[in-house]
Amino acid sequence: MCRVVAVKSTTPIQLAHLLTRPRHSIINQAFDSRLRLDLRRPINGDGFGVGWYGSVVGERLGHQPCLFKSITPAWNNSNLNRIAEKTKSPLVFGHVRATTAGSLSQDNCHPWSYEKIMFMHNGGIAEFDKIKRKLQASLSDELFLVPQGNTDSEWAFALYLSKLPDVHAREFSPAKPFEHLNELAREANITEPSLLNFFVTDGSTIVASRYISSKYDEAASLLSLCHPRSEYAPGGHYRMSKSDKRENIIMVASEPLTFEKADWMEIKMNTLIGGHVTCRTQAVTLAMLK
Amino acid sequence: MCRVVAVKSTTPIQLAHLLTRPRHSIINQAFDSRLRLDLRRPINGDGFGVGWYGSVVGERLGHQPCLFKSITPAWNNSNLNRIAEKTKSPLVFGHVRATTAGSLSQDNCHPWSYEKIMFMHNGGIAEFDKIKRKLQASLSDELFLVPQGNTDSEWAFALYLSKLPDVHAREFSPAKPFEHLNELAREANITEPSLLNFFVTDGSTIVASRYISSKYDEAASLLSLCHPRSEYAPGGHYRMSKSDKRENIIMVASEPLTFEKADWMEIKMNTLIGGHVTCRTQAVTLAMLK
Amino acid sequence: MCRVVAVKSTTPIQLAHLLTRPRHSIINQAFDSRLRLDLRRPINGDGFGVGWYGSVVGERLGHQPCLFKSITPAWNNSNLNRIAEKTKSPLVFGHVRATTAGSLSQDNCHPWSYEKIMFMHNGGIAEFDKIKRKLQASLSDELFLVPQGNTDSEWAFALYLSKLPDVHAREFSPAKPFEHLNELAREANITEPSLLNFFVTDGSTIVASRYISSKYDEAASLLSLCHPRSEYAPGGHYRMSKSDKRENIIMVASEPLTFEKADWMEIKMNTLIGGHVTCRTQAVTLAMLK
Amino acid sequence: MCRVVAVKSTTPIQLAHLLTRPRHSIINQAFDSRLRLDLRRPINGDGFGVGWYGSVVGERLGHQPCLFKSITPAWNNSNLNRIAEKTKSPLVFGHVRATTAGSLSQDNCHPWSYEKIMFMHNGGIAEFDKIKRKLQASLSDELFLVPQGNTDSEWAFALYLSKLPDVHAREFSPAKPFEHLNELAREANITEPSLLNFFVTDGSTIVASRYISSKYDEAASLLSLCHPRSEYAPGGHYRMSKSDKRENIIMVASEPLTFEKADWMEIKMNTLIGGHVTCRTQAVTLAMLK
Repeated sequence: MCRVVAVKSTTPIQLAHLLTRPRHSIINQAFDSRLRLDLRRPINGDGFGVGWYGSVVGERLGHQPCLFKSITPAWNNSNLNRIAEKTKSPLVFGHVRATTAGSLSQDNCHPWSYEKIMFMHNGGIAEFDKIKRKLQASLSDELFLVPQGNTDSEWAFALYLSKLPDVHAREFSPAKPFEHLNELAREANITEPSLLNFFVTDGSTIVASRYISSKYDEAASLLSLCHPRSEYAPGGHYRMSKSDKRENIIMVASEPLTFEKADWMEIKMNTLIGGHVTCRTQAVTLAMLK
Repeated sequence: MCRVVAVKSTTPIQLAHLLTRPRHSIINQAFDSRLRLDLRRPINGDGFGVGWYGSVVGERLGHQPCLFKSITPAWNNSNLNRIAEKTKSPLVFGHVRATTAGSLSQDNCHPWSYEKIMFMHNGGIAEFDKIKRKLQASLSDELFLVPQGNTDSEWAFALYLSKLPDVHAREFSPAKPFEHLNELAREANITEPSLLNFFVTDGSTIVASRYISSKYDEAASLLSLCHPRSEYAPGGHYRMSKSDKRENIIMVASEPLTFEKADWMEIKMNTLIGGHVTCRTQAVTLAMLK
Repeated sequence: MCRVVAVKSTTPIQLAHLLTRPRHSIINQAFDSRLRLDLRRPINGDGFGVGWYGSVVGERLGHQPCLFKSITPAWNNSNLNRIAEKTKSPLVFGHVRATTAGSLSQDNCHPWSYEKIMFMHNGGIAEFDKIKRKLQASLSDELFLVPQGNTDSEWAFALYLSKLPDVHAREFSPAKPFEHLNELAREANITEPSLLNFFVTDGSTIVASRYISSKYDEAASLLSLCHPRSEYAPGGHYRMSKSDKRENIIMVASEPLTFEKADWMEIKMNTLIGGHVTCRTQAVTLAMLK
Repeated sequence: MCRVVAVKSTTPIQLAHLLTRPRHSIINQAFDSRLRLDLRRPINGDGFGVGWYGSVVGERLGHQPCLFKSITPAWNNSNLNRIAEKTKSPLVFGHVRATTAGSLSQDNCHPWSYEKIMFMHNGGIAEFDKIKRKLQASLSDELFLVPQGNTDSEWAFALYLSKLPDVHAREFSPAKPFEHLNELAREANITEPSLLNFFVTDGSTIVASRYISSKYDEAASLLSLCHPRSEYAPGGHYRMSKSDKRENIIMVASEPLTFEKADWMEIKMNTLIGGHVTCRTQAVTLAMLK
């Protein structure tokens, strides 16, 4: 399973404070098994990606997020270290990959973006090879050509986009992509459960799901923390902890990213939340495959 | 356009003698415009790949060729330099890529292999986006899952495989892949010509096409040379030239790889040749789209 | 020889307008020989680097520039394309490398930085192996440990730093690094000329040299353009040209980066200029080796 | 600490049987913490390298080993997987790196070679920055120019070479490199111990040390196994175990590479062994710093 984090803040945060410096960031947990809060997770060294929305609106990318991806491990990447020190953003996605499907290439690193929508996935679509053709057939010509890599996750992104009324719309029936994937699995007699923790944003709102298509198994973990604060710990190490002051930040992640695990709230299984910076989340319950 | 070379020899040749050392090898021409025999060609720095058949039969790869690919330029690759010095093979494919479609990733570097078949392409399928879906639909479930990258060339390989009676067969109707691609272009009202110089081998015979789907335009160049010989040139530079002795080697390439251009025989347009080590080639004339 | 550009502007410029989009940018000239204004130059595919000063002051890097480097060619780098679209800076260095010495690694890509000083080099130190030990011996313990790669250029940076009164000082005797290198060459009986086009900045002022250690040979080219303007050309292509309006931008580069070559002013040989945004430059004449 | 393996066999072994397939190979232990036999070791994802002697003697490399290195993790490297399946060698070095010093680049990946000598290191030279200059000063001009990267290990290789009577000699005083490093540490008042597990070969004999410069601390682990055998385990997984038959293979590694840990013999601390294929080893006791 991969390690993921999504953050939204009213004031832009320095990427280094989220990704490269905190002792329990997704990158440092990926690197050092002694720091891992969940020891069952394997190593995440198969590339990584970071996406963020900034202040520069370009002719080509417009309001699209900036993406930085690499096939070398995140914990030893000079470019990431420098960019993270020099970049601030109010909305950041980070993803450290552990390969389940797809080769090691930047095309296969999360997150992906299309227009201003950004997407990443933690989990896997069960026996994806059996439904790949039907999933592709359901896409419009435009969206069929969007994926550049060969992962189940990137095709799930295309499917997700296809369920939006249009890519600029803020509202849509959030259960539809899940229902469609369940339907495809049913038709292909797939019984192995799919783990569909999706993270989507349009640059202002984050939507995240914690979902498994079976009611007998456990979904991949998903937790959230409101109002975290980053600070230098006494020993010199950088740490992140829950803030006393009410800074308007919400983090959603695959594992607790602060030493105080208990601060983190577990997202209920088979739920899709719309995270707002006020930390009030709307939860939608999603139907399971069986 | 890319630079390609395919070589078959009765005695194994050292890869360095073909790829990294000769002054006019595809790699050195790619690097140094002063060496280019065809100045119209652009730079080829978008990755490369080498495939060769060796003596080791493994449990996993069996008689499949060994492939080495890289996304950094071929002319400055320490691994390639060392492997080329230390490897001999009787049948070698080399490909230096200049991107027309597909991102920079090892998945997108030629050649590709499936079982013991190896394939590479010089050219491009016109407006591939318009026929991608139909081409995929024509493939069996097995072959649909073969491509790992996102180039027209790799899907052409899958199409090619689909026209073989079976991947172990030596004979098949060689015109079929071209006819199928023409048919798809016709249905999609594509008028821009496709350049389909394909190179295929099963480890013992090389088949190469020089093809363009229009009769009004010129196909990408394709030349062959029998009995080349490599030697140290007086000034210290390594060179390749036509041999007086009858060494049983045949080279097929996108451009002359020796200083003496005139030694190279141009393959006729819209022809598919089956190159044998005896240098007798069987030519099959292919129909054009229009 | 490498391709280099240094730009200073009163208003931050989008990196894409300098690097990735203009038809004659150093990156596009490196890629497409048909665009090259100087056809004698070889291909520049051995990695690249971009450095810029931004608005974010970090705990670790402080006022240091942000650097992005890659060992894959600049013309096909998704990260560069996205970052260039999303980043604005008032002072940018860009360098596209053609290897003369040193292997292909990010450590060997220009520019380098130390504290707030950034440096890049176009040219080469003649027979560097013969003076490497003495050059290293002249450095302080601190500066001896700065270089991470194995190029003559990075050691020239360390030497350059050693001649600054301190790295925060704005003034120093600009001829000293050149004199020191000439002295080392003299002691080692090196007669081949060194090409020392250095580019240095502290984030507010750019200093650039056009220098060759012999009076019988020509230095590598160095040109400057004041008040350039970027615009969409009629045919849809992006172009850069001399501005009518007095935008306060100065560009210094290894070759003309606009179609109108004549707009560019050649820097005199063996001169070191201090480029200010007002386009008044101070020129210092440097002594030659012989 | 890195993971290392050195193997010598009378009959060439397939690299895949040593590196990519066995469940407890250095690569698979690096990847999957559940397979790790020594859980204290951190992740090894900072590049890797493999070196082997083959049958092809080239004009440039002669009897030098072939090296393949990469900065992406070893457990997901298509080139390594294919090359390992297709290559056999009687003498192989493998090294999976966990960075302690030096950036992530192929130049910094072990093993290195010079003429026919190949070298790798597991451990670290304490406070190397303090002795780097003196170590370099002790080298001949020729050896001073050998290192291309910036690690303590590669400079240790240069030092090692400098103690050989000549690089073609088989005999030398094996304690000298250790004594020299201890002397440098003493002069620089370095008290932190250096871990110097060196592996050296000339293509026919392997020499390996298990050394720490302090008598109060423990050296990095080093074990050996004679006559291992690789076979398919019942469940389908590939495994390596001690052979009943007397196949002439000796493996020296940083950790047990078979499930049966007890088969492995621990090398005594501060010992240098010369491993012969007959499994008779000559042990030399090395003096400690203090």
